[in-house]
Amino acid sequence: MIPPDTGFTPGGAPLNPAAARARFRAGLRRPTSGISPGFAQVNLLALPRELAFDMLLFAQRNPKSCPVLGVFEPGQHDDAGIAHPLLAEGDLRTDLPAYRVYRDGELIAEPDDATAHWREDLVAFLIGCSFTFEAPLLEAGIPIAHIEQGVNVPMYTTAIRCAPAGRLRGPLVVSMRPLPADQIADAVRITSRYPGVHGAPVHIGSPAALGIDDLASPDFGDPVEIPAGWTPVFWACGVTPQAEVMESKPELAISHAPGHMLITDLPDAQLQVP
Amino acid sequence: MIPPDTGFTPGGAPLNPAAARARFRAGLRRPTSGISPGFAQVNLLALPRELAFDMLLFAQRNPKSCPVLGVFEPGQHDDAGIAHPLLAEGDLRTDLPAYRVYRDGELIAEPDDATAHWREDLVAFLIGCSFTFEAPLLEAGIPIAHIEQGVNVPMYTTAIRCAPAGRLRGPLVVSMRPLPADQIADAVRITSRYPGVHGAPVHIGSPAALGIDDLASPDFGDPVEIPAGWTPVFWACGVTPQAEVMESKPELAISHAPGHMLITDLPDAQLQVP
Repeated sequence: MIPPDTGFTPGGAPLNPAAARARFRAGLRRPTSGISPGFAQVNLLALPRELAFDMLLFAQRNPKSCPVLGVFEPGQHDDAGIAHPLLAEGDLRTDLPAYRVYRDGELIAEPDDATAHWREDLVAFLIGCSFTFEAPLLEAGIPIAHIEQGVNVPMYTTAIRCAPAGRLRGPLVVSMRPLPADQIADAVRITSRYPGVHGAPVHIGSPAALGIDDLASPDFGDPVEIPAGWTPVFWACGVTPQAEVMESKPELAISHAPGHMLITDLPDAQLQVP
Repeated sequence: MIPPDTGFTPGGAPLNPAAARARFRAGLRRPTSGISPGFAQVNLLALPRELAFDMLLFAQRNPKSCPVLGVFEPGQHDDAGIAHPLLAEGDLRTDLPAYRVYRDGELIAEPDDATAHWREDLVAFLIGCSFTFEAPLLEAGIPIAHIEQGVNVPMYTTAIRCAPAGRLRGPLVVSMRPLPADQIADAVRITSRYPGVHGAPVHIGSPAALGIDDLASPDFGDPVEIPAGWTPVFWACGVTPQAEVMESKPELAISHAPGHMLITDLPDAQLQVP
């Protein structure tokens, strides 16, 4: 659950990305949905360089779940030397609200600061996050249940297998937003314009067909209440590479904690197609 | 220039992709624009495995010029073992009408069959080609000068630098189609729906701003006549990786000959967004 109002809630004044990152760098820990509306949010996955090709190939073969928006140079974690278009200033090791550290596929830590675990041979991948298209959904009057209920978005590991690449393989992870029947088509239309942050839903209704037995028990994030008559709508989720890490067991991997994203300096509008 | 009519011209009966590949495998050599309308055409670039990450990263950083539609497994060149969605049957080494072979960045051969040059450590990248969106342009009544004039599309090496990746760097290469003033907007609208085959134009008019001194002297392909009052419209071109090979000088690279593409089994419609 999200801590008490920190100035980040939809009712509070929005923070620009640099200010939001500074708050997280200072230790604030909370999900980032609804924070800095208008700026893209991204998943982080840092892997040893020897796995970098496999990861990029996995992303190429699974573009709905792994839309890569940026790749830092091996060892690069901040804006020193090269200011990355996604991160005009800041440090990947400190500027997310929470991280997950995996060793041999096992989650060994969930720190607020990943500096102690970082290595110079890591290559950081920044993968689009569906929080990005929540702003245009809200602008179109489409309700976002987890924002209204003040919780993290629910995410589920599905029975769908991703296309493998090299040593990387694993299931598709999805995020879920329940929607009223008369707004699902609009949500498809709007989100399909943002393929860089997962695009259109992969599945509408029928959670059992994804192998999801109980919507009230998400594998990541928090459950949301689903109003009567609303349908669960599923988008491919950038936690997918973490599920792949758990199954493929690379020696070291550092990611964001689900729902606790990097807020970038890239305006949403630049991701809109066509 | 294109050889005499082979049954491939727009006036002839269209061939399905497998039949077209069989003709090329048997030795026919001609540009592929207008052949097998409705099916995606792709650029080929095969590089040694040690450069595969750099290439995929180059593509991620230069998505307009290098939209990767598929990557074969290291050493894989045909449908044995794994039928690739882009190539239900066939062989990358023989099924294109013409190839270019580069050693240390120098063009050393332009064979009809690349088998003698292929190596087991090559990774083949298939990159979307703008010939793919010519079918929907023609359907919308937009003229394609190089098809009407029976020549290969003109391509130009520009003064624009691509974002480098690892050891790979080079200029942007563009293809050019002249268009009447009242159809440019439609061409932008239609091609923007196909980001997987270069999408919207990168530049409309003003060739000098791209560093192109003389439209009548393309760096690849053939010149086209530009009717009075028509404007040159430039799209990012999948020959860009070849320009990068010439500058970055990998030990070995095998590509299609410009304009002589792989005709895939992927229907154009599957590349359309949103």
